Amino acid sequence: MKFTAKLLAELINGEVLGDPYVEISKLSKIEEGIPGSLTFLANPKYTPHIYSTLASIVIVNKDFTPEHEVTATLIRVESAYQAFAKLLELYSQVKFNKSGISDQAHISRNANIGKNTYIGEFAFIGENVSIGKNVKIYPQVYIGDNSQIGDGTTLYAGVKVYTDVLIGKNCTFHSGVVIGADGFGFALKSASDYMKVAQIGNVIIEDDVEIGANTTIDRATLGSTIIRKGVKLDNLIQVGHNVEIGENTVIVAQTGIAGSTKIGKNCTIAGQVGIVGHLKIADNVKIGAQSGITKSIDEEGSVYLGSPADKLMDCKKSYILIRRLPSLAKQIDELEKKVKELGQL
Amino acid sequence: MKFTAKLLAELINGEVLGDPYVEISKLSKIEEGIPGSLTFLANPKYTPHIYSTLASIVIVNKDFTPEHEVTATLIRVESAYQAFAKLLELYSQVKFNKSGISDQAHISRNANIGKNTYIGEFAFIGENVSIGKNVKIYPQVYIGDNSQIGDGTTLYAGVKVYTDVLIGKNCTFHSGVVIGADGFGFALKSASDYMKVAQIGNVIIEDDVEIGANTTIDRATLGSTIIRKGVKLDNLIQVGHNVEIGENTVIVAQTGIAGSTKIGKNCTIAGQVGIVGHLKIADNVKIGAQSGITKSIDEEGSVYLGSPADKLMDCKKSYILIRRLPSLAKQIDELEKKVKELGQL
Amino acid sequence: MKFTAKLLAELINGEVLGDPYVEISKLSKIEEGIPGSLTFLANPKYTPHIYSTLASIVIVNKDFTPEHEVTATLIRVESAYQAFAKLLELYSQVKFNKSGISDQAHISRNANIGKNTYIGEFAFIGENVSIGKNVKIYPQVYIGDNSQIGDGTTLYAGVKVYTDVLIGKNCTFHSGVVIGADGFGFALKSASDYMKVAQIGNVIIEDDVEIGANTTIDRATLGSTIIRKGVKLDNLIQVGHNVEIGENTVIVAQTGIAGSTKIGKNCTIAGQVGIVGHLKIADNVKIGAQSGITKSIDEEGSVYLGSPADKLMDCKKSYILIRRLPSLAKQIDELEKKVKELGQL
Repeated sequence: MKFTAKLLAELINGEVLGDPYVEISKLSKIEEGIPGSLTFLANPKYTPHIYSTLASIVIVNKDFTPEHEVTATLIRVESAYQAFAKLLELYSQVKFNKSGISDQAHISRNANIGKNTYIGEFAFIGENVSIGKNVKIYPQVYIGDNSQIGDGTTLYAGVKVYTDVLIGKNCTFHSGVVIGADGFGFALKSASDYMKVAQIGNVIIEDDVEIGANTTIDRATLGSTIIRKGVKLDNLIQVGHNVEIGENTVIVAQTGIAGSTKIGKNCTIAGQVGIVGHLKIADNVKIGAQSGITKSIDEEGSVYLGSPADKLMDCKKSYILIRRLPSLAKQIDELEKKVKELGQL
Repeated sequence: MKFTAKLLAELINGEVLGDPYVEISKLSKIEEGIPGSLTFLANPKYTPHIYSTLASIVIVNKDFTPEHEVTATLIRVESAYQAFAKLLELYSQVKFNKSGISDQAHISRNANIGKNTYIGEFAFIGENVSIGKNVKIYPQVYIGDNSQIGDGTTLYAGVKVYTDVLIGKNCTFHSGVVIGADGFGFALKSASDYMKVAQIGNVIIEDDVEIGANTTIDRATLGSTIIRKGVKLDNLIQVGHNVEIGENTVIVAQTGIAGSTKIGKNCTIAGQVGIVGHLKIADNVKIGAQSGITKSIDEEGSVYLGSPADKLMDCKKSYILIRRLPSLAKQIDELEKKVKELGQL
Repeated sequence: MKFTAKLLAELINGEVLGDPYVEISKLSKIEEGIPGSLTFLANPKYTPHIYSTLASIVIVNKDFTPEHEVTATLIRVESAYQAFAKLLELYSQVKFNKSGISDQAHISRNANIGKNTYIGEFAFIGENVSIGKNVKIYPQVYIGDNSQIGDGTTLYAGVKVYTDVLIGKNCTFHSGVVIGADGFGFALKSASDYMKVAQIGNVIIEDDVEIGANTTIDRATLGSTIIRKGVKLDNLIQVGHNVEIGENTVIVAQTGIAGSTKIGKNCTIAGQVGIVGHLKIADNVKIGAQSGITKSIDEEGSVYLGSPADKLMDCKKSYILIRRLPSLAKQIDELEKKVKELGQL
C-alpha cells in the first residue's frame, strides 16, 4: 500500500510543504529515515536529523520552521506526535482488517458467532461457545466448550482457551497464550504418591486485557482465576490457579505468580519476579526485576526489590554493604590486630 | 447439565435433608456459594458459612447437626470431602468424555490407533506412531514419526511431540507442551562459529506424569531424556537434553534444568529454580524458590535455598546477617573509634 | 530402517572386522549399548566398555586393537568420532527428508514458494509470503502476511511467525516459537489507564540462527528487532522489542532481554539471566546464570555474575564473604567484648 503526502495530510488535517504527490509505503525513525518512508519530528532534540533524513515525508509541529534546506516533504499539524499516532492506528486497522469465517475452521453447530467476526483456518470452536461482534480469531486458535469471547477481542494464531473461560471485550492475546489449563494441585495419597486434585474452576478475564506470547493462566481449583479490567501481561508469564490481578496492573515478562495470591490495582511488577502463593499485594505497589516476594505487602504504593524482597531503600542499603563486604572484612581484621596489640601493651 | 439432590445423593450413597428436587449446575466454595451451586462442609472452621451460604445443596458429614436454620438442601454422607471429590471425578469424566476420530485430523496410514481413542480436529499423527486405548488427543496436537502414546493418556490442544518419543500410560500434557525438540548443543568450528551437534536421542516419559502448559523437554543428544513415573511438572519449565527426573518428583513453574543433570526420587523443587548441567541431586531433596543449584547434592532429604544455594539453615543465617549488615557496619565503625581512643590513652 | 555393517562401512570408508551382515536400527552410547544398535569408541577412557557392550556394531579408530574378545562387529576408520558424526548427519538427512506440499495446508494465492519445499498439514501461509528453496514448514505452522523465509530454513510444528518478519537462510526454529508478537508498550492515558502504543516495526532474523522451543521474539515498536547471523537461542527465552543480538552470540534457556537493549557479538549468556532495557553489552562478554544486568557493559570480553551483577571476581568475593558473615559477626562481637575489657583496664 502506498500513500501520497496529499492523502495523509487530509487524514490528519495538515498542511503540505513540498511535493504533495511523493509516496510512502513504510514508517521509519527520523534518524534512520529511508526513501519511501514516513516519519515525524516532535522532540526538538531530534531537529538536526530533519536536515539529513532520507525519509520522504516528515510530519512536523505547526510551529516548526526549517533553518536549512529540507529535502523531505513536510506535513504541518497541530501536534506531530498525535497525528503520527493517529496514522498508526488507521494503518493497523487496515492491516489487521481480517474478516470472514474460513470454511477450513471447525465450528461446533451450537456455537454462537457475532457479526463481523473473523475466524481463520484450522481454528477450533467448541460446543456452546459464544463469540461477540468484531472478534478476530486467527488460524489454529482453540476455544474449548462453553467459553465466551467478548466483542472486539483479538486472539492471534495458536492461542489455546480451555473450557468455561470467560473473556471480556477488546482484549488481545498473543500467539501461544494458554488460558485455563489445570492448576498445579496434587494431594499426597501416600508418602510419595500423588493424586491429582480435580481443577474444576475457571478463568475470568475482564475487558481491555492484553496478554503476551506464551503466557499461561491456570484455571481455579474451585471458583475463578480473575484478571481484572485493563491488566497488561507481557510474554512467558505464569499465573497460578485462583490468582486475582487487580485493574490496570502491568506485569513484565517471565514473572510467576503462585496459586491464590491476590494482587492489587495499578501495580507495576517487573520481569522475572516470583510471588509465592496465598499472599496479598496492596494497590499501587511496585516490585523490581528478579525480586522474590515471600510475604504479603500491605502498604499501598510501596516499592520492593530483592530476593527475598525488602523495601527498596533497605534492599539498596544491603546491596551497597554487600559490595563493601571486602573492605568491612579488612577493617575487622585490622581491628583484631590492633586490639591484640593493645591487649599486649 | 443439571443434577437434582436426589440423583447426587444416590451417586454418593447419602441421605437428603430438605428438597430432593432442587437442582444444581455448578460448584462453589461454601463461603462464596451462589444459587444453583453445590458445595460441601468438611472443615469445622467453615461451619458458620452453612447458615448464610446461597448454595442450593451442601454435602455434610454424617455427624453434622445444624444449630440454626439452613436454607440449602443437605446431603449427609460418611465423609463430605471424599464424597465431593468423587462427584468431581464423575463430573470430569462426563465433561471430558470426548470420543471419536475427526475426519479433519491427519492420520498417517501406518499409524496404529487403540480402541476408544479421541483424535480432534487438525491433529497430526505421523508415520509409525502407536497410540493406545482410551487416549485423548485434542485438536491441533502434533505427534512426530515413530512416537508412542500409552493407554489413557491425554494431550490437550496444541501439544507438540517430536519423533521417537515414548510416552507412558495415564499421562496428562497441557497445551503448548513441546516434547523432544533438539537439545541445545553446538560445537565451536572456529573461534566464533558454531556447528550444530546432531541431537539424535529421544525422550522417554513413564506412566502417570503430568506436564503443565508451555513446558519444554528436550530430546537427548544420544540416549534418552527420562521423566520417571509419577513426576509432576508445572508450567513453563525447561528440561534440558539427557536430564533424568526421578519418580514422583514435583517441580513448580518456570524452573530450568540444564543438560545431563540427574534428579532423584520424591524431590520437591519450587518455582524459578535454576539447576546447572551434569549434576546429581539425591532423593527426597527440597529446593526453595529462585534457588541456583551449582553443585551436586548428595545428602538425601536435605533442603537447599539461595543463589548460589546453601543448606537452608546456612542460607537463612546469611539472609538474616545481610539484613543486619547496616548495624554490623555501624558496630565496626564504633569499634574503630574506640580502638583509636584506646590507642591514644 | 535397518543398516548392515557392510553398508555403513562403505558410507564411512571403513574396514569391517566381524559379521558384515549384522544389522542395526538405532544408536547407543557404548556403556549403554543394546543389541541392534550402533555405537563408537573414540575416547580411550571408554575402552573397557567395548568388551562388555551389547551394541551390534562399534566404530573404532584404525589403531584400535582388541586385547580381549569382542562380540560386536567392528568398523575401523581413520577417526571414529568423525565417522560417527558423518553417519549421524546422513541419518538426520534421511529422517527429516520431508517433502511436498500438503493439500491440507492453507497457502494464499499470492504466496511465493521455492523449489523442493515441504509444507505440512494445517500450516497457514499468509498473503505475499515468500518462501525459499529447500525450506521445511512442519504442520500447524503459521506465517503471517508479507513475511519471508530464506532457503534451507526449518520451522518445526506449530511455530508462529507474525506479519512482515524477515527470516534468513538455514535457520531452525523449534515448536512453539513466536516471532513478531507486539512489543510490550503502553502509554499512560490517565493516572492508571493505559493506551496501547502501536507496534508497527518488524523482526529481522539473519542466516544460521537456531531458536529453541517456546522462545518469543517481539516485533519492534518502530524499526526492527534484529537477530544477527549465527545466533543460538535456547528454549523459553524472551527477546523484547527493538533488541539487537550480535553475530554468533549464544543464549541459554529462560533468559529475558528487555526492550531496545543491544548485545554484542560472540557473547555467551547463561540461563535465567535478566537484562534490563536500553543497555549496550560489548562483544565477547560472558554472563553467568541467574544474573541481573542493570547497567551497560563496555569492556569487551568481561565476565559478569550476580543480581545485580558485578564483575566475576568481585561477585565471587562477595559470595565468599556472605558465607563468612556468621564468622565475621562473631569476630565483631568478640572484638566488642575485648575492647570493652580493654576500656575497663
